[in-house]
Amino acid sequence: MPPEWARTPGVLAAMRHAAELAEGVHGSTSPNPPVGCVILDTEGEVVGSGATRPPGGPHAEVVALEEAGSRARGGTAVVTLEPCAHTGRTGACAAALRAAGIGGLVYAVSDRNPPASGGARELERAGVAVAGGVLAEEVAGGALRGWLHFARTGRPHVTWKYAASLDGRSAAADGTSQWITSPEARVQVHRLRAKCDAIVAGTGTVLADDPSLTVRDEHGAPVPEQPLRVVLGDREVPAGAEVLDDAAPTLRLPGGDPEGALRALADRGVVEVFLEGGPTLAGAFLRAGRVDLVQAFVAPALLGSGRSALGDAGVVSISWAWRFYFERVTMCGPDVWISAVPAEG
Amino acid sequence: MPPEWARTPGVLAAMRHAAELAEGVHGSTSPNPPVGCVILDTEGEVVGSGATRPPGGPHAEVVALEEAGSRARGGTAVVTLEPCAHTGRTGACAAALRAAGIGGLVYAVSDRNPPASGGARELERAGVAVAGGVLAEEVAGGALRGWLHFARTGRPHVTWKYAASLDGRSAAADGTSQWITSPEARVQVHRLRAKCDAIVAGTGTVLADDPSLTVRDEHGAPVPEQPLRVVLGDREVPAGAEVLDDAAPTLRLPGGDPEGALRALADRGVVEVFLEGGPTLAGAFLRAGRVDLVQAFVAPALLGSGRSALGDAGVVSISWAWRFYFERVTMCGPDVWISAVPAEG
Ligand SMILES: NC(=O)c1ccc[n+]([C@@H]2O[C@H](COP(=O)([O-])OP(=O)(O)OC[C@H]3O[C@@H](n4cnc5c(N)ncnc54)[C@H](OP(=O)(O)O)[C@@H]3O)[C@@H](O)[C@H]2O)c1
Ligand SMILES: NC(=O)c1ccc[n+]([C@@H]2O[C@H](COP(=O)([O-])OP(=O)(O)OC[C@H]3O[C@@H](n4cnc5c(N)ncnc54)[C@H](OP(=O)(O)O)[C@@H]3O)[C@@H](O)[C@H]2O)c1
Repeated sequence: MPPEWARTPGVLAAMRHAAELAEGVHGSTSPNPPVGCVILDTEGEVVGSGATRPPGGPHAEVVALEEAGSRARGGTAVVTLEPCAHTGRTGACAAALRAAGIGGLVYAVSDRNPPASGGARELERAGVAVAGGVLAEEVAGGALRGWLHFARTGRPHVTWKYAASLDGRSAAADGTSQWITSPEARVQVHRLRAKCDAIVAGTGTVLADDPSLTVRDEHGAPVPEQPLRVVLGDREVPAGAEVLDDAAPTLRLPGGDPEGALRALADRGVVEVFLEGGPTLAGAFLRAGRVDLVQAFVAPALLGSGRSALGDAGVVSISWAWRFYFERVTMCGPDVWISAVPAEG
Repeated sequence: MPPEWARTPGVLAAMRHAAELAEGVHGSTSPNPPVGCVILDTEGEVVGSGATRPPGGPHAEVVALEEAGSRARGGTAVVTLEPCAHTGRTGACAAALRAAGIGGLVYAVSDRNPPASGGARELERAGVAVAGGVLAEEVAGGALRGWLHFARTGRPHVTWKYAASLDGRSAAADGTSQWITSPEARVQVHRLRAKCDAIVAGTGTVLADDPSLTVRDEHGAPVPEQPLRVVLGDREVPAGAEVLDDAAPTLRLPGGDPEGALRALADRGVVEVFLEGGPTLAGAFLRAGRVDLVQAFVAPALLGSGRSALGDAGVVSISWAWRFYFERVTMCGPDVWISAVPAEG
């Protein structure tokens, strides 16, 4: 339990604000973590705030300190992730906080990443009052989730998204599937896409649907920053395919083990993968134990036949079922949006 | 909009209480409606309350008036359904309210059932202040839903219940399906069964699973009052089948049109049907347009193969999908419990 001075309403509000700032840059920082920082002065007033800039730019703490200027002196830095100790492309954040004369540091989640970890200890040794673990669970399940997964496992975090009818069908018997789910769900899918570094589909989906796999705004226009598009599979993709246009870079990877594809993506700095189908690829990733989060959009419709949202996942008997935990269940327009994470063990 | 005197916090609270009382007897009153009644005295104090007794017993108003005694004089009767005007097995409720000297009547839903309707008008003519439509929508979607459907259409109300994995499978590839959903969901299913008059399954389910189709309490013991068990289909059910034991009466109906089965059940006083599968029968009822409410229990598991919860429902193209409206989405232990009603038109 963090000490009392680090759990006052003002500090908790600052941490929630920092988490929101981090969410705002989620998807634009990889391979760096999306972090948020709020600087409180000696009176507890917010005097600076910021979030990680794109790679090569300043980290959250430096952005917030810049805004705070001399008012940071003796104040408290509230950060979603423990400040880094190492000097990367941009100089260590711990050093910047020391230089600004910060009196207190409150962070949510520890950075156990070897070259960067130790920032909190470094500041404590320099006489700064330090408290970690504030709103840790809440923050770890937010914008930092994918990065923490990558830091822990060395593998990109995989979100499998699908849209289906209540009975689990993603297309009718004749193959039609347009607008199973609502406009609200489609807007939400673009928001989720924007938070990842790569959008992955199989040749099956690309050949059947000719999707563009880009992030588009509410008006259908592609946003300026696009995730990497990745097409998995051996079959040839025709030159005129949408996925090969110049709206975003596209990577072709051969079929085979999802593990290999994830390694290739990690090598390219991809921390968060958005797996968008289809059923064959989803089944392959599940079988490999490589689905870390399911985002299901379930429409209030029944089909009774047609393609299933999930293909062979290696389950023969009920005791082999892939077990999850429903983390969040909300309405998204007329649809139900279900977020599920793998059950422990 | 009902008049102001009929929308005071005291009257609204009494109506909600009456609705709860009705819910408590839901399943034990058919072919009569499950109704709740609360009597307020001239000061607005609750002096009597009650709900419909099993067929042949008194209606809700009479039970509540009995408790209130002379304190009902000049008071207000708050009832979920317009009091009946006709003299059935038990005497008309409107007459009983008049005889008790009630000064005001507040009801939620009108009774348009020809022989019984007109109770409100009768009381109004006798000088009682009458207000209808109070919390009408809330009450009509509760215990009265099935009865109102029957009154409107002449057909029993059909609830299709199923349990499935998130991807819509009700069994694994080898046929195993035990405990897809949680103990909490199973308890809830027994509560839902208890509210209906008949539990319907096809020979497919009976031959495959040998289910007992009874309502059991939390300890697994059958409750004293059991709905009628109905097995649809031409195949023979072996004499030793659970469904043929003496825990509850069982009706065998041949296969064919769901319409015919519903008519046969209506003739036997069945107002609410609980359709418990399997996928073939559910598809047949959907195709016939005879699913009025879906109760889906969705487990946090993925299977990717195995039997689908819903069989052929006559949908070939996506525009033919059976469209619903998610009326209620809640957690039930680790599962999601989704209630869906057919979309208009
Ligand atoms: N409802 C939804 O949310 C949703 C989302 C996406 C797609 N879909 C639908 O899904 C349909 C396509 O289904 P699909 O299953 O063929 O698409 P898919 O999963 O996108 O593609 C399958 C193909 O991916 C390749 N592949 C690469 N790595 C693989 C691996 N490790 N294991 C297996 N295959 C691998 C194989 O192609 P090669 O033979 O070329 O190697 C395989 O045939 C489309 O009609 C689309 O509409 C629905
Ligand atoms: N997950 C769940 O919630 C759930 C619930 C129930 C069952 N199940 C599973 O479902 C499996 C059985 O599947 P099922 O589809 O064979 O069971 P079913 O739907 O209960 O039975 C199908 C049979 O019902 C008869 N039938 C009567 N009227 C019919 C009509 N109008 N249209 C079509 N058939 C009619 C036919 O049998 P005749 O040939 O005899 O006429 C038909 O073969 C079981 O293994 C069980 O575990 C799952």
